[in-house]
Amino acid sequence: MTNRPATTQITRIARRASGTAAAQRMVPEETPIALSYAGTTHAVMMASPADFEDFALGFSLTEGIVGSAEEIESIEVEDLGAGIDIQIRLKDKANTRFQARRRRLAGPVGCGLCGIESIDEAMRSVCQVGQAALTLSEDDIVQSVKLLSKAQPMHAETGAVHAAGFYVPGKGVVLAREDVGRHNALDKLAGALARAGIAGSSGAVVVTSRVSVEMVQKAAAIGSRFIIAVSAPTALAIRTADEAGMTLVALVRGDDFDIFTNPDRVTSGAARHVA
Amino acid sequence: MTNRPATTQITRIARRASGTAAAQRMVPEETPIALSYAGTTHAVMMASPADFEDFALGFSLTEGIVGSAEEIESIEVEDLGAGIDIQIRLKDKANTRFQARRRRLAGPVGCGLCGIESIDEAMRSVCQVGQAALTLSEDDIVQSVKLLSKAQPMHAETGAVHAAGFYVPGKGVVLAREDVGRHNALDKLAGALARAGIAGSSGAVVVTSRVSVEMVQKAAAIGSRFIIAVSAPTALAIRTADEAGMTLVALVRGDDFDIFTNPDRVTSGAARHVA
Repeated sequence: MTNRPATTQITRIARRASGTAAAQRMVPEETPIALSYAGTTHAVMMASPADFEDFALGFSLTEGIVGSAEEIESIEVEDLGAGIDIQIRLKDKANTRFQARRRRLAGPVGCGLCGIESIDEAMRSVCQVGQAALTLSEDDIVQSVKLLSKAQPMHAETGAVHAAGFYVPGKGVVLAREDVGRHNALDKLAGALARAGIAGSSGAVVVTSRVSVEMVQKAAAIGSRFIIAVSAPTALAIRTADEAGMTLVALVRGDDFDIFTNPDRVTSGAARHVA
Repeated sequence: MTNRPATTQITRIARRASGTAAAQRMVPEETPIALSYAGTTHAVMMASPADFEDFALGFSLTEGIVGSAEEIESIEVEDLGAGIDIQIRLKDKANTRFQARRRRLAGPVGCGLCGIESIDEAMRSVCQVGQAALTLSEDDIVQSVKLLSKAQPMHAETGAVHAAGFYVPGKGVVLAREDVGRHNALDKLAGALARAGIAGSSGAVVVTSRVSVEMVQKAAAIGSRFIIAVSAPTALAIRTADEAGMTLVALVRGDDFDIFTNPDRVTSGAARHVA
């Protein structure tokens, strides 16, 4: 199915020093999206109603439900009015593995698990990123955030959505996705990368948001050695990036930034030419 | 139990125009917190490890698990190392109602529900806020955000956490809570208000974040007629605030702000004296 409009125009009262008046503004839409595997709902997220196939594939990958796009038989998207239902059918082996995991967890919510088991599931081991030789220059990092800001049409309209992009040295931001939720934007990017056949090890994940542990877990599942963020990380995100072998760069403001883990992969040279 | 430290000092490489050097920075901690009812986990959230009783009570209230603090028999907090387990025991009647709801849902995750049922649960009817006569002046709104910014010690240290506060005309921000997650900050505020015996109808919920539909649902459950936010709302948040009878004010920047619903409750007078 086609996307719904992801933004909408509303009228609000604008109070300014110059006076108070009704005026138009664009705001982002927000829609419940149910992701169902083998016919029953696995999760419901409030998300921007766009890029549904990217979302379904990316969530399946970053949550470890599938190891590759090939394990998915089909993705069907249905607009139910009140929300979007995405039915994901897994191929035999992946489906067997998923059903076993579901039986073990019986769903993390109201699930019969005790607190210890639920916390262990939330803190699951992070993927180790590979030892590929990618390094980035200081200028690559500064450029990656500047280029991402040019790939945010929804944010330009509304000033109110997150973006996740993929920066490849010498090529710039090759893909970007936006969403009202930062986790959703990253999941959509993961799906878009897989569908485009772009290896996560070839570049850096760049996000406009803060970096919580789940953002690091998802970037590691994508296979990137770098996560670059406009805002700040949490302590747990830093520890997890270190454990995964990732370089975590954050608080990129103009030409300034902070490197929190594995700084040896950031060189002081200039960026290669960005198209 | 006592809180863990909610922030921690780390060393990062700071790249500035003046040069690159290792330096210290405070970052917020982030910890999985399991909320368990009747012995099994209902939800696990990544949150700041502080204000556990406020969180347990507030989540129970804003998610409609209890109608009042009196329906909770006990709250026990255990630090498991990897995370925090909070065991909530409900009194007889509330417990019976909760078990019936749990059987009906069997947990929204991996739960046997189809997409339609899961989406309906996510889009549950919002509480109608009462018709109490509270109005706010334009200056009250500007003051509420300014005063909240002075009640954010974790943010002052780290620049990276959200806050939710409660503004009462003539009294200022009477309570505030901070968290790495904006929903958690609002849940902690809800619990703190209930424990202090402050009626939600007596003031305005003020948040530093964007306004998604869940923030409106929680503010309505608190019983406030106002939600005031530093950042922008989604279209669904605006529709839900309208449905709940709430006044939604957002994009408060200095003396400027936008009113998205029910603007008649905002008067042009000055704020009453704020202590």
